[in-house]
Amino acid sequence: MRQSQLFTRTQKNAPSSETSINARFLARGGFVDKLMAGVYTFLPLGLRVMKKIEQIIREEMDAIGGQEIEMPALHPKENWEKTGRWKTMDDLYKVKDMSGRELALGPTHEEVIAPLVKKFVNSYKDLPLAVYQFQTKFRMELRAKSGVLRGREFLMKDLYSFHLAPEDLDDYYEKVKNAYFKIFGKVGLREKTYLTFASGGSFSKYSHEFQTVTIAGEDTIYICEKCQTAVNKEIKFETPNCPVCGGKKFQKEKAIEIGNIFKLQDRFSKPFNLKVINKDGKPKIVLMGCYGIGLSRLLGTIVEVHHDEKGIIWPESVAPFQVHLISLGKNKEAEKIYKNLLAKKIEVLFDDREASPGEKFADADLIGIPWRAVVSEKSLALGGVEVKKRSEKKVKIIPGQNLGKYLSS
Amino acid sequence: MRQSQLFTRTQKNAPSSETSINARFLARGGFVDKLMAGVYTFLPLGLRVMKKIEQIIREEMDAIGGQEIEMPALHPKENWEKTGRWKTMDDLYKVKDMSGRELALGPTHEEVIAPLVKKFVNSYKDLPLAVYQFQTKFRMELRAKSGVLRGREFLMKDLYSFHLAPEDLDDYYEKVKNAYFKIFGKVGLREKTYLTFASGGSFSKYSHEFQTVTIAGEDTIYICEKCQTAVNKEIKFETPNCPVCGGKKFQKEKAIEIGNIFKLQDRFSKPFNLKVINKDGKPKIVLMGCYGIGLSRLLGTIVEVHHDEKGIIWPESVAPFQVHLISLGKNKEAEKIYKNLLAKKIEVLFDDREASPGEKFADADLIGIPWRAVVSEKSLALGGVEVKKRSEKKVKIIPGQNLGKYLSS
Repeated sequence: MRQSQLFTRTQKNAPSSETSINARFLARGGFVDKLMAGVYTFLPLGLRVMKKIEQIIREEMDAIGGQEIEMPALHPKENWEKTGRWKTMDDLYKVKDMSGRELALGPTHEEVIAPLVKKFVNSYKDLPLAVYQFQTKFRMELRAKSGVLRGREFLMKDLYSFHLAPEDLDDYYEKVKNAYFKIFGKVGLREKTYLTFASGGSFSKYSHEFQTVTIAGEDTIYICEKCQTAVNKEIKFETPNCPVCGGKKFQKEKAIEIGNIFKLQDRFSKPFNLKVINKDGKPKIVLMGCYGIGLSRLLGTIVEVHHDEKGIIWPESVAPFQVHLISLGKNKEAEKIYKNLLAKKIEVLFDDREASPGEKFADADLIGIPWRAVVSEKSLALGGVEVKKRSEKKVKIIPGQNLGKYLSS
Repeated sequence: MRQSQLFTRTQKNAPSSETSINARFLARGGFVDKLMAGVYTFLPLGLRVMKKIEQIIREEMDAIGGQEIEMPALHPKENWEKTGRWKTMDDLYKVKDMSGRELALGPTHEEVIAPLVKKFVNSYKDLPLAVYQFQTKFRMELRAKSGVLRGREFLMKDLYSFHLAPEDLDDYYEKVKNAYFKIFGKVGLREKTYLTFASGGSFSKYSHEFQTVTIAGEDTIYICEKCQTAVNKEIKFETPNCPVCGGKKFQKEKAIEIGNIFKLQDRFSKPFNLKVINKDGKPKIVLMGCYGIGLSRLLGTIVEVHHDEKGIIWPESVAPFQVHLISLGKNKEAEKIYKNLLAKKIEVLFDDREASPGEKFADADLIGIPWRAVVSEKSLALGGVEVKKRSEKKVKIIPGQNLGKYLSS
């Protein structure tokens, strides 16, 4: 894409209401625009990153047998009354229909998926089953102040699994755990992300959170020095030893919860009477698990972990473009290279604007595309394009016609 | 995908509340599930079709220079008060925040896009500009009764364009018109779709609808017998002659509106004071156009046009799978062919279930995948797979190993 055509532009200053690093860089770079607290528009650059994150998650969900669907945001009040959450869920947005009938704006989808699955699942042979979606959630958040980390409206991947026996739920839960670590690895967060024990509510001893260590975190976790498993504040308070290895020494860190997995057991299958006929001919209640990842929160966390004082440093897997091609008064020569890269299916943002080198370099550092390729009088005299990684200082001259090959290798 | 793994199953009868053909076939085939009137879940088969439609539209929007973004559903009341539509728009869902502050659930996005574009567009050099999204809309529909044709919550592609001069808006409007006909051609609706003159409100003489002729239509159009342009009821009443050729003879038809395009002029730029500095250094109000396609309505219309008494007949471009591979007691032989097709990147639904031939054929006809390939004792004795198009009666025997090549050619 030609940067001269991109309708967004970078900004020297972030809106004063944005205080977190991710919000400031994402706003300044033209990735997102805040409509109101916790409610964002994804601009062309930001949407490209979101689509890449989505595809990475989709592939891992498919790999563990998830079937993709899309459920609506408008939910009948009756479904939420059945589970008792119409009254107990504080962050539920409620809206009235023309007839005065009340509806919920879905903050999560147990109340829709359980009756849906009940329509299709009758026999023990229909289990296990896993269904997921990418869908916009609504939550009336009190603390919507950390940029895209905590939204009132946000895209979430929610997976729900259905099982006959507790051991089968346990097995699948482990599979999801592994899939989540793969996802967080692919988006560049594996190193700083810890499996964290959290309360399982009244149904399981524990649930698990995936917490990424960063000073921007709103949560506090305690990492066991022996086995590197973490526990959240709540668990640390209840049981002072590590639930995995019994270790007693912990390192306290600020962290962002980027995923959670939960054994729901029969909490939601019971109210909807979701049962199957078992081998013995008798009805048996279905067990459920639920597994969430908030995509915009993941995007914000990637920025919190991958940046320097000048801007974002996107991991290649989620970068809006692979290379930022910058022409310094050499649009004719750069144009050839641009077309060559497009022909090689390399995603390139081509800075063909009339602007100073300083402005162009500052923009490139702020936007954070992994590779920068500069075409200038100097680079051409040296025999080609000056190539540099956003994360490194060293530069290299590559002949223009070889750039595509160099970047693909 | 293996049909034995697909969690949905076909149903002999549609829910009694569904009366339209599209709703009945889509429900019976397991494409959609109705949560309440006008609110649907897209099941695995239905979501696959929606994603194909989305990609067809995206390519045409990109081809006319559209930049993809995603705006939120929660809108501040103030934006809707600025344009006066907080009070005048009957189908606006309103929701209260924790502080009692009122918000709108976006039924359309002029109130968000105009102030957004204002942040980035300052000079005449920044125009023209076109921005689009695929985003879930909410409308408090009174008549939510034709399946997915008229939703209270539905996915829409909305494109907005911004111009300096009226002629530039006119030019772009024509470009969108052509892009829309390309889209409707690609999804199999070109033949029955008519450009239809509709009222332009108080700003243009006309707007245009794209109306697809089918007995399921809720609209009435009048097609000029001379030039094949249509006018809607409203226009027919005001001006009895064809606005294009002056023709006087019309054919009256029932039709579904699958798209509309509208010159907004300064209707929404004015309230937000969306201006640019012109060449002469003076501020000039920006002109806007808006262009919509409802994706689920498009899906429903495709079914209304492409079906027979047994079920859906998907055009290849939007089919959930390219081929329905059916094993009649020959799973071992069919498995080889299945893997061969997957290796060739052909999208295949493999009916590996234990079920009668009659049941399998009825399901295939209902689901409507363009090609059916049957592996049976008979077909193997004849030398391969029995191949048939959903839309035709004649069958052909193809050696199993050649099926991929045959379907790709």
